[in-house]
Amino acid sequence: MAIQSFHPPKRTLMGPGPSDVYPRISEALSRPTIGHLDPAFIQMMDEVKELLQYAFKTNNALTLPISAPGSAGMEACFTNLVEPGDKVIVCINGVFGSRMKENIERAGGETIVVEDTWGRAVDPLKVEQALKAHSDAVILAFVHAETSTGARSDAEKLCRLAQEYNCLTIVDAVTSLAGNELRVDDWGIDAVYSGTQKCLSCVPGLSPISFSEKAVEKIANRKSKVQSWFLDMNLIMGYWGKGAKRAYHHTAPVNTLYALHEALVILQDEGIEQAWDRHQLHHQALTAGLEAMGLELVVPEAERLNQLNVVQIPEGVDDAAIRSELLTKYNLEIGAGLGTLAGKVWRIGLMGCSANQTNVLNCLSALKSVLGLEKDGAAAALAFYQSQN
Amino acid sequence: MAIQSFHPPKRTLMGPGPSDVYPRISEALSRPTIGHLDPAFIQMMDEVKELLQYAFKTNNALTLPISAPGSAGMEACFTNLVEPGDKVIVCINGVFGSRMKENIERAGGETIVVEDTWGRAVDPLKVEQALKAHSDAVILAFVHAETSTGARSDAEKLCRLAQEYNCLTIVDAVTSLAGNELRVDDWGIDAVYSGTQKCLSCVPGLSPISFSEKAVEKIANRKSKVQSWFLDMNLIMGYWGKGAKRAYHHTAPVNTLYALHEALVILQDEGIEQAWDRHQLHHQALTAGLEAMGLELVVPEAERLNQLNVVQIPEGVDDAAIRSELLTKYNLEIGAGLGTLAGKVWRIGLMGCSANQTNVLNCLSALKSVLGLEKDGAAAALAFYQSQN
Repeated sequence: MAIQSFHPPKRTLMGPGPSDVYPRISEALSRPTIGHLDPAFIQMMDEVKELLQYAFKTNNALTLPISAPGSAGMEACFTNLVEPGDKVIVCINGVFGSRMKENIERAGGETIVVEDTWGRAVDPLKVEQALKAHSDAVILAFVHAETSTGARSDAEKLCRLAQEYNCLTIVDAVTSLAGNELRVDDWGIDAVYSGTQKCLSCVPGLSPISFSEKAVEKIANRKSKVQSWFLDMNLIMGYWGKGAKRAYHHTAPVNTLYALHEALVILQDEGIEQAWDRHQLHHQALTAGLEAMGLELVVPEAERLNQLNVVQIPEGVDDAAIRSELLTKYNLEIGAGLGTLAGKVWRIGLMGCSANQTNVLNCLSALKSVLGLEKDGAAAALAFYQSQN
Repeated sequence: MAIQSFHPPKRTLMGPGPSDVYPRISEALSRPTIGHLDPAFIQMMDEVKELLQYAFKTNNALTLPISAPGSAGMEACFTNLVEPGDKVIVCINGVFGSRMKENIERAGGETIVVEDTWGRAVDPLKVEQALKAHSDAVILAFVHAETSTGARSDAEKLCRLAQEYNCLTIVDAVTSLAGNELRVDDWGIDAVYSGTQKCLSCVPGLSPISFSEKAVEKIANRKSKVQSWFLDMNLIMGYWGKGAKRAYHHTAPVNTLYALHEALVILQDEGIEQAWDRHQLHHQALTAGLEAMGLELVVPEAERLNQLNVVQIPEGVDDAAIRSELLTKYNLEIGAGLGTLAGKVWRIGLMGCSANQTNVLNCLSALKSVLGLEKDGAAAALAFYQSQN
């Protein structure tokens, strides 16, 4: 029998991303496709750049969306900045730090690993020791918001340390962009990458990135070609760089870029600081509700992300069965654990437009019901909201 | 002043891609985003695979869309199949053959170049000579449909030669898939990549690819890791391979995949052979019209693509001014020349749903007007259509 058109169910997305998409963004996606060299498109791309600079809080000229998901943005940073033989200090406190290490090794770099417990922030003291012990290291790489554990590291402090020891920094901001404080220029981040499907509430498929002038200089002066043609910033700068002639490199994902443009206009209209605050408000309400029901968060309070709340699965509870029940009965998606946390935790996302009161209360009610808990988490969250008015 | 939402003009896309998008596909794009690990999504991905197998005419288990544009699909083939030191025969008869060479070199391969005139097919005699002269070559790479020149090479014959000399084949089918005959299994193609924004009439952003069992075996037995983590098929097979557990690798571009699914359902409903025939019909009508107006095609008749018609710019005509006039007065996009053909040719696409009678007639009328030609190409094309009834 012939295959029919696919009509997805309508879910509430409270996992680690994709998050719910603003209706305005869904509509933008379906606008008429135009050519990637059309003057109207190029003008839109100038605006995307300006809006991304706003979101990242940077004036970096080389600020753009990579035409592929966040993992490709990560690779764009490492494959361009790491030359064979470069020594790179990489912090691992979750899945995405390990992926950074993989990227460095595949680019021919040598890695010095700073390890921390999953669920904790990167320890600046250990990083400083590594910087001291390896004065020939040229890059420090770490994850700002660990999507696998819910831990937030002190990016400002880590970047300051890197500068003291003359290292460039590569920062994973896939989950942090627009969800908590991130200041690329003030903190002196040299390369940063993110994703569209997290706190921007856009569809997945693009990776916003930004490079400082020091980073651009290192890329421009490489001794060997970048391994990847598709991600080679020396070629991509022909389209995006300072005074570039918009040279054809590859066909841009036109409609997904409409969606990103719209997501960034929504962010601009809300205000970036206001978006951070909103994520924090709903995080506090969710946390109040979870704790009222006796559920425990993995990450200590001072190191928690607003946008990703990682909860211990109570003893004796069947992880997959509960997530499946939430999906089938409530159309509610929450995330499973990744790596060593698989089966041990749930990841509850409050990202972008998923970070709202209705989602918080619904999620708490659903969890109470499927877990058969006695205490009313939703009531606790509502009390928190009322206390904030 | 704040940046506003972007509303693109409505163009008719008759360049080298993106082509016009079916309204059903635009609508599919805006369906609700669900998680990439949602059971409903995984079921859709199974259908995407089955539909891609249909479009490629293959039973290859490893048939999937790469989560990035065609250039990334090209890189996926080369970075996985070419190991450092591998000798690869690469045919260059346009821009995309040169890009293949770049990819091979960046993967550490050694290239043997077979060159042909831009605007002509790859010469099988030269290829056979190269295969004879380099019995240690392990791969033959060529472009089936050269998007920069409009030339179609004899993929069936070239693949047969490669097999005689024990070479795997990597074939660029970015512009050929669904626009002219392409039989991956019958012809024995080992790795093939395409794009969504050409004859599938889908939005840009994905690259359908397929690997034969022999290709999978070479990838699985590599001595060194693939340079790219994002494109490493040994990891991606954990999601797409035979009996794979749908392991998380990266966040799939969910909505663009809805669009691809819809495009492939439309293709299935039309029938792949019927789609080839339709492209041929409109190509013949367009050609009749162009020639009636005294415009010359670059490629000899037997080597022409249906879906991309490359026209000599008449002497004394200002390339950019004419294209700009077509865009502003007619909302009609045709393509400029690329590489050594820049300023010398126009590329008129008839891809996917852009391949229809209205587009052919409008394009011929618009060209007549902006070029101030006397003969009526649209009338000639219409006469051709009527002769076919």
